[in-house]
Amino acid sequence: MKIAILGGDGFCGWPTSLHLSNLGHDVVIVDNLSRRRIDEELGANSLTPIQSIEDRIAAWHEVSGKTVEFKNIDVAQDYDALLSLIVDDQVDAIVHFAEQRAAPYSMKSPKNKRYTVDNNVNATNNVLTAIVESGRNVHLVHLGTMGVYGYGTAGMKIPEGYLDIEVVADEDKNGNPAEPHRVQQQILYPTNPGSVYHLTKVLDQNMFAYFAKNDQLRITDLHQGIVWGTNTRETAMDERLVNRFDYDGDYGTVLNRFLMQAAVGYPLTVHGTGGQTRAFIHIQDTVRCIEIALNNPPTRGDRVMIFNQMTETHRVRDLAALIAKIADAKVENVPNPRNEAAENELHVRNDTFLDLGLNPTKLAEGLLLEVTDIARKYADRADRSKIPATSLWTSNQQAGVPASVAGNK
Amino acid sequence: MKIAILGGDGFCGWPTSLHLSNLGHDVVIVDNLSRRRIDEELGANSLTPIQSIEDRIAAWHEVSGKTVEFKNIDVAQDYDALLSLIVDDQVDAIVHFAEQRAAPYSMKSPKNKRYTVDNNVNATNNVLTAIVESGRNVHLVHLGTMGVYGYGTAGMKIPEGYLDIEVVADEDKNGNPAEPHRVQQQILYPTNPGSVYHLTKVLDQNMFAYFAKNDQLRITDLHQGIVWGTNTRETAMDERLVNRFDYDGDYGTVLNRFLMQAAVGYPLTVHGTGGQTRAFIHIQDTVRCIEIALNNPPTRGDRVMIFNQMTETHRVRDLAALIAKIADAKVENVPNPRNEAAENELHVRNDTFLDLGLNPTKLAEGLLLEVTDIARKYADRADRSKIPATSLWTSNQQAGVPASVAGNK
Ligand SMILES: NC(=O)c1ccc[n+]([C@@H]2O[C@H](COP(=O)([O-])OP(=O)(O)OC[C@H]3O[C@@H](n4cnc5c(N)ncnc54)[C@H](O)[C@@H]3O)[C@@H](O)[C@H]2O)c1
Ligand SMILES: NC(=O)c1ccc[n+]([C@@H]2O[C@H](COP(=O)([O-])OP(=O)(O)OC[C@H]3O[C@@H](n4cnc5c(N)ncnc54)[C@H](O)[C@@H]3O)[C@@H](O)[C@H]2O)c1
Repeated sequence: MKIAILGGDGFCGWPTSLHLSNLGHDVVIVDNLSRRRIDEELGANSLTPIQSIEDRIAAWHEVSGKTVEFKNIDVAQDYDALLSLIVDDQVDAIVHFAEQRAAPYSMKSPKNKRYTVDNNVNATNNVLTAIVESGRNVHLVHLGTMGVYGYGTAGMKIPEGYLDIEVVADEDKNGNPAEPHRVQQQILYPTNPGSVYHLTKVLDQNMFAYFAKNDQLRITDLHQGIVWGTNTRETAMDERLVNRFDYDGDYGTVLNRFLMQAAVGYPLTVHGTGGQTRAFIHIQDTVRCIEIALNNPPTRGDRVMIFNQMTETHRVRDLAALIAKIADAKVENVPNPRNEAAENELHVRNDTFLDLGLNPTKLAEGLLLEVTDIARKYADRADRSKIPATSLWTSNQQAGVPASVAGNK
Repeated sequence: MKIAILGGDGFCGWPTSLHLSNLGHDVVIVDNLSRRRIDEELGANSLTPIQSIEDRIAAWHEVSGKTVEFKNIDVAQDYDALLSLIVDDQVDAIVHFAEQRAAPYSMKSPKNKRYTVDNNVNATNNVLTAIVESGRNVHLVHLGTMGVYGYGTAGMKIPEGYLDIEVVADEDKNGNPAEPHRVQQQILYPTNPGSVYHLTKVLDQNMFAYFAKNDQLRITDLHQGIVWGTNTRETAMDERLVNRFDYDGDYGTVLNRFLMQAAVGYPLTVHGTGGQTRAFIHIQDTVRCIEIALNNPPTRGDRVMIFNQMTETHRVRDLAALIAKIADAKVENVPNPRNEAAENELHVRNDTFLDLGLNPTKLAEGLLLEVTDIARKYADRADRSKIPATSLWTSNQQAGVPASVAGNK
C-alpha cells in the first residue's frame, strides 16, 4: 500500500512510519516540521537526541534497506501540494497525525488558542476535501483522543465512539401525533472536551461524520489515550532512529514528566489530589493499532469507524507512587493549572483492538526500561526549568510549580 | 448598550443594526464586505439597489438622527482589531452574523469548502477568544441554523437545542458495578448537517459549549430558519436604506428564487418532488428576536442558551403552489442538486420566543407585498441567467436547471 503519514516526523508519526515501512508498505512522510519550531519557541527540546528528518530517513535506509520519502507540506495551508501528492503518488491510505497536540500549549495564550484551532481544523478539512477532489477511494486513519468523551463517570464503560440512547417520541414516521413511545438510537458519544486542543478533536469528529455521509469517505477515527514509552522495535535499531521524548510542561505528558523529575532528583509534581484517572497506551501498541486499523478499513458508505486506542487506565497519584518507588523519588502536590474535576473514574471499552489481535505492553512491564534506558541515560540533556506546567486554563487557576523548586525557574 | 454587529452589512445584519439603533442602542457595524466581493465573483447582485455601507449609514443618520459606526475588520483574520474594538469601545454585547452563509456556495468547489470552514470557524473562535482576553462580561448572540438538527422526522418536535435522553448505566457514582438502570440526561441535540456550510454551524455550536463551560462566557445561539422578506420598518423608511434581496442560485433562498422566477415570467423550479419541509421566519421577526435575545441574556456560568428562531414550516412544493397562485406562474420540477431525502417532515418547538412576546408575521400575510413591492418593482434589474442553482453536493448529483430555460444560460 502507498501510505502518506501526515505528521510523520512527530512522536507517534515517526515510529508509525518505520513500522509500516518495515512491513513492506510504501511510506511517504508529510510534515511541515512545526513541532520542531515549537520546541525552539518554547526553548525546549526532546530529551533524546533526535536527528533531522533527512538524517533519520537516511539512517533508516542504511539500517533496513527501505526507502521512506519526505515532503515538507503544511497540510493546513498547502492544499494544492497535498492534493497533488494524493493524485500523483496514487495514495491508498492516509494516517493523519498532523495537528498541534498539546493541551497546555493550546491554552497558553490567545495566540496559541487561535493557532491550534486554525491549524487543526484546516488540516483536517484540507485532507477530507483533497480526498474528495482526488476521486481516490483513500482510507483515512485519524488520531483522535479519549479526551473528546470528557473525563467523568458516565455510569458505564465508555463505548467506542457511539452511544445507545432512548428518546421519548410522540409522532409516527409520517410526523402524525402518536402515543408517547421509546425510540432507540445510536449517536456519536456526546463530547465534553477539557481544553482547546481537545475541542479541535471534537470538531474533527464532526467533520468526519459529515464527509463519511455526504461523500462516502472511508474513515477510521482512533480515540487514543496518553501515549507513553519512547522506542519501538524499529526506532531501537539504531540510535539515529531514536524517537522523541518530551518532558516540558507543555508537551511532556504526565508520565514523561514524572520520569524526568525522578531522573534529575526532583519531586514528582502531582496536580491537585492526583485523583484524575487517565487512559494510557505504549508507543509500540500505537504503531500496532494503526497497522490493525489500516488492515480493517470501513466499506464505502459506512459511518466513521471509531476505536478506543488505549490499554489501561490509572489514577495520576497511583502512577506517581509507582514511579517514585521504581526510581526512588518523592511526590509533591501542587495546584492544578487545569480546569477539571479533582477526582474522576474512567472505564473504557477497547474490545475492538483486543479482538483484532492487539497484545498490550503494560506499564508494569515497560516502565523500568523507560527509567533506565531513557530518563537516566539522557538526564544530562535535561533543562530542569522546563519541567513545570505553567499554562493556565482560566485566569482563576494557579501554575503547577512546586514550592520546593519554584526558586529554580 | 454598546452593541457590535459582526456582519452588519449583510441581509440580516443591516436591518438588525438599524432596529437596535432605533431602539436607542449604541451600534457599531463590523464587516469586511466579503459578501459584496462574493457578488462580484459570482457576477450576481442584490435585486434591490443597496447602497455602499458609508452611504447607508449616512442616510440612516439623515433619516433618524442616529449615528451608527462602521469598522472594516475581517473577524476571521484581524484578531487584534477585533480585541481592541471590544476593549476600547467597551462593548456590552456582540451579535455575530459574520459567516459565509450559503449552502450551495459552500459546495461549489474545493476552494469554497475550504473558505467556508476557514472563515466561519476562525471568525467564531476569534470572537470567543477575544471576549475571554478582553475580560469583559460580553453577551454573545450568534446566528446558527435549524439545519444543524438535520432534516428528517425525529419522532418529536425538535426541541430548542437540547435533547432529553436515557442511557442504560451499569456503574454507580464511584464507578463500581451496579444493577443496570436507566439514567436521564440532557445533551446537545445530535447534529446531522446537510452541507459544509451547515457543518460549520455544528462546529460553532461545539465551540460555544466549550467556552461557556471553561470561561463562563454568556452565549445565546439562535437556530434560525430560512429568512424571507426584504424590508423592516427601519429599512423601509428611505429607499437608500433598502435591504438586500438575493435571488441567485447560491445565495437566493428557495422563496426568493420563486418570487424572482414569477416576476420575470419563468417557471418556479422545484428541486425533486419539492417534498422537503423547511422552517421560515420573516426578516422583521428576525430583528425582533435578536432584540428579545439581547434583553434575556444567560447568567454567567449558564450553559449556552439555544432558541429556535422560526415561526412556520412549509413544504417546498406548497410554497411554490402558493406563489404560483399569487403571482400567476407555472411550476416545473428539476433534479435536486442537493444530497438529501426527497421528502421530510419537520416539526419544531419555538416556545421561547413566543413566550417572550414575539408576534410572528406569517407568509400568508407578507408574501403579496414581496411580490408587488420587491420582485415586480425591481424585476428589470434581474439577471435571469443567475437564477438556477448549479452547485452540486456530490459528483453524483445533477444541476437544478429546468429543461425549459436551460438554453437561456
Ligand atoms: N502523544 C499522545 O499522547 C497522543 C495521545 C492521543 C492522541 N494523540 C494524537 O496523535 C497525533 C500525533 O501526536 P504526537 O504526540 O505524535 O504529536 P507531535 O507534535 O509529536 O507530532 C505531530 C506532527 O505533526 C506535524 N504537524 C502539525 N501540524 C502540521 C501541519 N499543519 N502540516 C504538516 N505537519 C504538521 C508536526 O510537525 C509534528 O511532527 C496528534 O494528532 C495527537 O493529537 C497523541
Ligand atoms: N439568511 C438566512 O436565511 C439565514 C438563515 C439562518 C441563519 N442565518 C445566519 O445568519 C447570519 C447572517 O446571514 P445573512 O443572510 O445576513 O448573510 P449575509 O451573507 O448577507 O451577511 C453576512 C455578513 O457577514 C460579513 N462577513 C462574512 N465573513 C466575515 C468576516 N470574516 N469578517 C467580517 N465580516 C464578515 C459579510 O460581508 C456579510 O455582510 C449568518 O451567520 C447565517 O448563517 C441566515
